[in-house]
Amino acid sequence: MDAAQEAHNREAFHQAVVNTLERRLFYIPSFKIYRGVAGLYDYGPPGCAVKSNVLAFWRQHFVLEENMLEVDCPCVTPEVVLKASGHVDKFTDLMVKDEKTGTCYRADHLVKDFCKEKLEKDPNMPAEKAAEFRHVLAVLDDLSPEELGAKIKEYGITSPDTKNPLSAPYPFNLMFQTSIGPSGLSPGYMRPETAQGIFVNFKDLYYYNGNKLPFAAAQIGQAFRNEISPRQGLLRVREFTLAEIEHFVDPDDKSHPKFSEVASLEFLMFPREDQVSGQSARRIPIGVAVSEGIVNNETLGYFIGRVYLFLTCLGIDKDRLRFRQHLANEMAHYAADCWDAEIECSYGWIECVGIADRSAYDLRAHTDKSGVPLVAHEKFAEPREVEKLVIAPVKKELGLAFKGNQKMVVEALEAMGEKEAMEMKSTLESKEEIEFHVCTLGKDVTIKKNMVTISKEKKKEHQRVFTPSVIEPSFGIGRIIYCLYEHSFYTRPSKGGGEQLNVFRFPPLVAPIKCTVFPLVQNQQYEEVAKRIAKSLTAAGISYKIDITGTSIGKRYARTDELGVPLAITVDSTSTVTIRERDSKQQIRVSVEEVASVVKEVTEGLSTWPDVLWKFPSHSSMHGDD
Amino acid sequence: MDAAQEAHNREAFHQAVVNTLERRLFYIPSFKIYRGVAGLYDYGPPGCAVKSNVLAFWRQHFVLEENMLEVDCPCVTPEVVLKASGHVDKFTDLMVKDEKTGTCYRADHLVKDFCKEKLEKDPNMPAEKAAEFRHVLAVLDDLSPEELGAKIKEYGITSPDTKNPLSAPYPFNLMFQTSIGPSGLSPGYMRPETAQGIFVNFKDLYYYNGNKLPFAAAQIGQAFRNEISPRQGLLRVREFTLAEIEHFVDPDDKSHPKFSEVASLEFLMFPREDQVSGQSARRIPIGVAVSEGIVNNETLGYFIGRVYLFLTCLGIDKDRLRFRQHLANEMAHYAADCWDAEIECSYGWIECVGIADRSAYDLRAHTDKSGVPLVAHEKFAEPREVEKLVIAPVKKELGLAFKGNQKMVVEALEAMGEKEAMEMKSTLESKEEIEFHVCTLGKDVTIKKNMVTISKEKKKEHQRVFTPSVIEPSFGIGRIIYCLYEHSFYTRPSKGGGEQLNVFRFPPLVAPIKCTVFPLVQNQQYEEVAKRIAKSLTAAGISYKIDITGTSIGKRYARTDELGVPLAITVDSTSTVTIRERDSKQQIRVSVEEVASVVKEVTEGLSTWPDVLWKFPSHSSMHGDD
Repeated sequence: MDAAQEAHNREAFHQAVVNTLERRLFYIPSFKIYRGVAGLYDYGPPGCAVKSNVLAFWRQHFVLEENMLEVDCPCVTPEVVLKASGHVDKFTDLMVKDEKTGTCYRADHLVKDFCKEKLEKDPNMPAEKAAEFRHVLAVLDDLSPEELGAKIKEYGITSPDTKNPLSAPYPFNLMFQTSIGPSGLSPGYMRPETAQGIFVNFKDLYYYNGNKLPFAAAQIGQAFRNEISPRQGLLRVREFTLAEIEHFVDPDDKSHPKFSEVASLEFLMFPREDQVSGQSARRIPIGVAVSEGIVNNETLGYFIGRVYLFLTCLGIDKDRLRFRQHLANEMAHYAADCWDAEIECSYGWIECVGIADRSAYDLRAHTDKSGVPLVAHEKFAEPREVEKLVIAPVKKELGLAFKGNQKMVVEALEAMGEKEAMEMKSTLESKEEIEFHVCTLGKDVTIKKNMVTISKEKKKEHQRVFTPSVIEPSFGIGRIIYCLYEHSFYTRPSKGGGEQLNVFRFPPLVAPIKCTVFPLVQNQQYEEVAKRIAKSLTAAGISYKIDITGTSIGKRYARTDELGVPLAITVDSTSTVTIRERDSKQQIRVSVEEVASVVKEVTEGLSTWPDVLWKFPSHSSMHGDD
Repeated sequence: MDAAQEAHNREAFHQAVVNTLERRLFYIPSFKIYRGVAGLYDYGPPGCAVKSNVLAFWRQHFVLEENMLEVDCPCVTPEVVLKASGHVDKFTDLMVKDEKTGTCYRADHLVKDFCKEKLEKDPNMPAEKAAEFRHVLAVLDDLSPEELGAKIKEYGITSPDTKNPLSAPYPFNLMFQTSIGPSGLSPGYMRPETAQGIFVNFKDLYYYNGNKLPFAAAQIGQAFRNEISPRQGLLRVREFTLAEIEHFVDPDDKSHPKFSEVASLEFLMFPREDQVSGQSARRIPIGVAVSEGIVNNETLGYFIGRVYLFLTCLGIDKDRLRFRQHLANEMAHYAADCWDAEIECSYGWIECVGIADRSAYDLRAHTDKSGVPLVAHEKFAEPREVEKLVIAPVKKELGLAFKGNQKMVVEALEAMGEKEAMEMKSTLESKEEIEFHVCTLGKDVTIKKNMVTISKEKKKEHQRVFTPSVIEPSFGIGRIIYCLYEHSFYTRPSKGGGEQLNVFRFPPLVAPIKCTVFPLVQNQQYEEVAKRIAKSLTAAGISYKIDITGTSIGKRYARTDELGVPLAITVDSTSTVTIRERDSKQQIRVSVEEVASVVKEVTEGLSTWPDVLWKFPSHSSMHGDD
């Protein structure tokens, strides 16, 4: 199959899924009767049920299983919090405006589209030219406004809708801004992530946990990003549900007591080195990835393993799921390591969960801004004599040398680890000066001997005070659900073969409704039995749908397969009924009294379908699928 | 007990509850390290668990039990939707500004505080004066900006913080405003309620339900109100969780098939007439209230009954719960009837659930604005000859007579019911003119014979097309939870009697954690048993907390009572353990293998504590509460 055919098939599959999802109200473009708003979607009844099942399982799998502290903070957030976190200054995309109509576009999208189209449409382009376009695509995220503007000029890119000239690129903050209270003097934003609500509560949560590390806090809630021009349907939206975990840990001990429970799990991993050297993702046991240092630490590895279990339990295909390590240029400067769970769907490989070791960055930022120390204490049983690294920048000399950049140089010096500091000490002693990279300046500076003293001092200490590291698994619930739809969707011919029927093979855990109840024919006796069964299902806490229309039983099966309902109960007598399984279409015969408990067993995972198939008489279909 | 003593006790009780809630992190003032934001609160770990239990029960009790269509719409809402619903124009409070500092206050609050203080502090005031203040308090919500401004002037009310003069009152819109997309040209708001998301989806939901009425849609989600100056702690907040139901029904048939299931429920009701005549709330069976016409229709009555069951199952005290009917001046002009579930707490009687018959108002408003007909169809088996009321306003004449008000007069004429229209017809025939009240103008106008023709015409019709009525139960989840805290809270002396211990008597359904596990003494064997039990609890899906500190068992019981944990497991041997019930403090002895299933039975309501008390040997405490 050639690339064009493959693209065509992918697009056809994508359309089939999306049409089914929209027709059966898994989702609805929001405010449709008013022609909608780009990037906003409603979950309709089955979508809402799937979402609520996914979130319930998330709570069970993470919060309950790990005894996490769940919190629930507001979406409206005052500016000071997001100033501290860096969002007010840095949460931007580069935008260009059509100079005549004022329509806004993402600058990188225009360049990306241009390069991709060139590469696709002009296969005979000189190799050198093609390499240039490929290079631009690879470094797109790193380009400055000026560099991006230069590319737009060089390629002669104009407004896609009008061909008008475009403005130079400038940053647009992606947060929805608002004002808190009536005065107009308190700017606020709709939170772009839920994590900050946890960080600002660190002190209380640490206390709640008995002043002990490690512990994790978790939050499920809405987050908001005012995208410039949303594309990619359900994957790039302006409001979405995040589920985030902040696991606080001693930076000197990132081991995890339950790591052995996941260590033997083996799945597709895509380490940084393999990406750079052009290899593909490969299966690595997570235990090996940690012991070989591919994954930075056990806690990070533990969560990668748990995320793998979470996603595959939901029904994500393990062969279209990979854990990709961030490249150096993707990762924040403070992060120790970062892996994305990426799921392959018709849009390509999509980042659905980010699992990052953010070190002490966030707690430090809020400590600095609020003046409240967000730290942990380790009390020693006996006072300890410790050798402490003391880095004392000589501010006067640094000020003379670096003027306005002094503060950033001081911070960079103070942030040095022991190894780096001791190396600097010996170089300064031997060579009087050293080249030193200051991240925040983006360049090297020359540090002279008189600018800093580095020493080790012995002290008696009763406790250790430190800022915990945080390991953050962050789940984009809407993206996971969309990928789940694609991985669960298949078609099969109707019995006559005349048409293709759609099926979602959701596991019962996810299915929006656990079973349907159909009286075989319209008849009062059968309807009464159906109602009795409905009542027993409600009592057992099982969601169901009853369909008493006179439609043929085959059509009714097809309708419910398209919603991914795992089991269908057909009432064809007053004493026993049949249960049909969605994917195998096999049927068993069960008494009216037992039916709710059999459905409960199967949908709650206490029995499998083969278990009950063995236990109950199978029913060869008098009323089959057609 | 005199009124002052009662007020003092109420305040002391309130403080005890709130202190416990804050200390144990049921809630946390949001962004506390930055000195917080008025009207924003976080749910800390136990509060978050309570909330999630309340919402899960809401889903079970309403959505699942009634097969409702749950949807999930965004918070960000474009202006056009809230223009149609009336929120852009009318969702306001009257505000005054301190003329020097610019600080904002709610005008009605200042007048209310002034009148209340006068009445409390000056018992010897002339009866006439007291009556005046009481009257102002009663009509406060109906006063126009001018009238309220006049009162402020008359009473000489100044800024409470500075005593500076105040501006005249003016309306402040309570929605948080924002801008959708980068252009700045698409105003949007954070939704003030979730209901509009359902109304705009009516057409799709009706189709999803097989084009059949009645059906209900439901939504749980955040709503936002930018309060001018939030007071009353957790009851008046700027962001809160709503759970709303919109039950769509044929306006000609508001019967409910399951009404008989609630008809015999009897609880405190406070009909409009009783309020006006100064009586108290009284117990009325809901069946009687509907049959006597106190409650407008069966569907409204059914939901009142279901709300009663919901609240009392959560643990709301039925003697401090009443259903109060809206007075004529409280109710929107389009509403057919409206009842609030009010719960008494230390703040007084608080509206926690509103249950309103909003007639066809919302669907009509969106039909008009969007041009998409939000209607239902009833197909007749045979074409029917129907006599149809035809009201034809003569726009030319009405325009001459009423100029700019013409449109409102036309709408009011067209909205007449059959009875009113036929009376108008006969009056116009006999007297040539009639006085007619136009709600939207707030006054009577004179309609002359040449301004409208009213007739009945016979037609053959194949179907009936109509706008459904909507009955809306709307739940303020945060308020319900706060009242639940107060109703569940009590104190009891410690065994020594030295101090008062706090207890929340949450039913297991609500309790944030279902049980705790304590090894009696710090010892490796016991800790291993505790871990085994913990594992079996997790497997059974039961939330628990393990406490292996060396603290005395009495103190550990007290800690967990204060979180409202119903059961505590104490490990005092390797084969059997004790289970202690929170309120009775009774203990039973159970084998390690059985303990998880016993806890599950009791906390899921399959057995009561007396059931298991009878079944297992009771344990007279060697390790009691002290």
